[in-house]
Amino acid sequence: MDVLVTGFEPFGNSDRNPSREVARVLDGRTIAGLKVTGRVLPVSMRAIGDALARVFEDPPPRIVVALGLANGESMVRIERYGVNLADFPLADNDGEKVVDRAIVPDGPPSFATTLPNRAIREALLQAGIPARLSNTAGTYLCNASIYLLGDMIRKRALETRFGFLHLPYMPEQVAALLATPHAERQPKQVPSMSLATMLRAVETAVATAAASSI
Amino acid sequence: MDVLVTGFEPFGNSDRNPSREVARVLDGRTIAGLKVTGRVLPVSMRAIGDALARVFEDPPPRIVVALGLANGESMVRIERYGVNLADFPLADNDGEKVVDRAIVPDGPPSFATTLPNRAIREALLQAGIPARLSNTAGTYLCNASIYLLGDMIRKRALETRFGFLHLPYMPEQVAALLATPHAERQPKQVPSMSLATMLRAVETAVATAAASSI
Amino acid sequence: MDVLVTGFEPFGNSDRNPSREVARVLDGRTIAGLKVTGRVLPVSMRAIGDALARVFEDPPPRIVVALGLANGESMVRIERYGVNLADFPLADNDGEKVVDRAIVPDGPPSFATTLPNRAIREALLQAGIPARLSNTAGTYLCNASIYLLGDMIRKRALETRFGFLHLPYMPEQVAALLATPHAERQPKQVPSMSLATMLRAVETAVATAAASSI
Amino acid sequence: MDVLVTGFEPFGNSDRNPSREVARVLDGRTIAGLKVTGRVLPVSMRAIGDALARVFEDPPPRIVVALGLANGESMVRIERYGVNLADFPLADNDGEKVVDRAIVPDGPPSFATTLPNRAIREALLQAGIPARLSNTAGTYLCNASIYLLGDMIRKRALETRFGFLHLPYMPEQVAALLATPHAERQPKQVPSMSLATMLRAVETAVATAAASSI
Repeated sequence: MDVLVTGFEPFGNSDRNPSREVARVLDGRTIAGLKVTGRVLPVSMRAIGDALARVFEDPPPRIVVALGLANGESMVRIERYGVNLADFPLADNDGEKVVDRAIVPDGPPSFATTLPNRAIREALLQAGIPARLSNTAGTYLCNASIYLLGDMIRKRALETRFGFLHLPYMPEQVAALLATPHAERQPKQVPSMSLATMLRAVETAVATAAASSI
Repeated sequence: MDVLVTGFEPFGNSDRNPSREVARVLDGRTIAGLKVTGRVLPVSMRAIGDALARVFEDPPPRIVVALGLANGESMVRIERYGVNLADFPLADNDGEKVVDRAIVPDGPPSFATTLPNRAIREALLQAGIPARLSNTAGTYLCNASIYLLGDMIRKRALETRFGFLHLPYMPEQVAALLATPHAERQPKQVPSMSLATMLRAVETAVATAAASSI
Repeated sequence: MDVLVTGFEPFGNSDRNPSREVARVLDGRTIAGLKVTGRVLPVSMRAIGDALARVFEDPPPRIVVALGLANGESMVRIERYGVNLADFPLADNDGEKVVDRAIVPDGPPSFATTLPNRAIREALLQAGIPARLSNTAGTYLCNASIYLLGDMIRKRALETRFGFLHLPYMPEQVAALLATPHAERQPKQVPSMSLATMLRAVETAVATAAASSI
Repeated sequence: MDVLVTGFEPFGNSDRNPSREVARVLDGRTIAGLKVTGRVLPVSMRAIGDALARVFEDPPPRIVVALGLANGESMVRIERYGVNLADFPLADNDGEKVVDRAIVPDGPPSFATTLPNRAIREALLQAGIPARLSNTAGTYLCNASIYLLGDMIRKRALETRFGFLHLPYMPEQVAALLATPHAERQPKQVPSMSLATMLRAVETAVATAAASSI
């Protein structure tokens, strides 16, 4: 396997997840001469470790671009760190709402992602796609996937380079959320990004990572 | 003329304006059986009144969908009011920075737009496009165009129905802004919307207005 | 009566309202030589008109500084307009959630407030208090109070000058909201302002209005 | 020394810094039976390491509550991590604008703060002070102080417990920023918190840390 792209199942108040769509669309594609495998991870504290180990089967990928949804985000957000902390803002898809739990007991406080994050940002801006570097991926499953990837790569002493991109909502998701009758007042600003733009973003990130890892 | 769609020239720190792009693309199109004329207005306090009067030449349009750019906005923002106040957050393209000036001396405090704004919002959400109703179009040229349209339609006793949609940045604009080297720190969130989505939004708004005005 | 300061009852998810606190504290005070009467208005579409008429009893005030709470606001927000529209983001204290209803049938689209709004802003900044001018007071009871004041003053042909200040949450309110166990995720930023600062703000506004109306 | 409270010098576009004010006011105070020393750190990549080492002189403190200013923040923000990265959004007070530099070459990716962060948050909410837990202190000097504290405590094998609180602007700072004539448009929302509230916050944090470290 050359490149692994992971997305997540839908969760919370939406039945769609752009990271799943992108992973599905890119599965089987070739980008910059590299074969891409797309996989979808469960939004589940209990299951995510095994799921990640499974997609890392022999041979392990050279490059991992993990994806997730960041609601409220307006740009492609390039994560630099995953921390050893699960502290959920909302329950996962098993209904579990974890508070202040280490992801890997006695693990280091964090792992840094190893893709060329700044070069990816510059390539995205060059491609007309808003992007920013970020120092926190939160403490939900997205962060857990980063930390577990870092832990797995270190324990297996792999040379795999890995990174994580947080994606905004798709416009259709926001429209569906706004159309739902709520007791409570609606948020004023809910940014989104078209799936087409996000697909181009991930392709650009993979190509940039491929170019730098040769 | 059946439907007039107006956009604005670029202004401020960007050399593009989605409202201009949409007006240009829709010029000459037929939507819901109505002929659309697209025109671009100057970002100029001095010139906007005459420019608006010119595009209202004989015969006046049945429907006006005026457009403008709202930086920082994440959705299609449907304006319900234009007020009799020019109080500019930044200079216009003539370099004039107006403070607290009446647009029409002795005019009423505001005009309400007369398109079916709530029906347009619902049609946009139905079409998967984030949209919200707004009670202020600011006090720059966008607001001035609303107020002047209201004033002109009233003075000429026309039956023209008119409305205003504020559009977000295009992704390419945000990327260009972020790529510019700044002395100052960059904003964290700058929402955008693809031109394709905004085109669909304006077409949907025109079709909804047409259906309700028959 | 020289100066009338109105606040509102608590509403929504909080059992306090800074506008009520300020109105109560200032009731009976003398500011800039003027006698201040503080009154609290109901958060009720049905009752607000009569309540406002009652506090306007003989003799009518020379100056009205109406107050309300704007959740999410970070500054003292000086409202320039009230519009003829009730369109509630949440139910009022009678449980009524009005949608798109004129406050005064056949009334003009809006009334402009008549206090020296820009001078008040400058006086507030001078006093070290963050403040901004605003062109919409929303479409809830705060806006209704502005519109009804404008309507009443015009119909009675009074020389009363009136304005409206939106106040942020008090810190204690935000802390209480954050301490409530929610199913849903918590908002990231909820600005607030201390009651002491808001009291100084309203005193400064009254003094500025008094100085300009002599 | 029992408790060390550090603040920072002013930087950027403001000549005040609430973290400096708090450190100065608390210097010499006794909180929960512990003697507090307040010190002010330079906003300087070149000087901060030595400055921190100096305030750690014999005997080292039992508890460190480091403070800094987070512009745009609305609450007391309790930082859980400092990362091994200097990537400045604006130049420091020496005019140096560092990009992507490790603070300690070959250091671990991050240190976690060791104060009882969640208990501090609960104590703050209980005291009526808005507060939130945060997973990034940015990549400016505030973050550098966290990382350097973690590094120093580990290298010297100290039992010192340390944490970091990001403070909002003071209202007077925001008013001064808004009063400055700018070429560019002004931000809409700039939250602040009164110095009195921030002092109470830090006292509460010290008392909570003291209670838990006995």
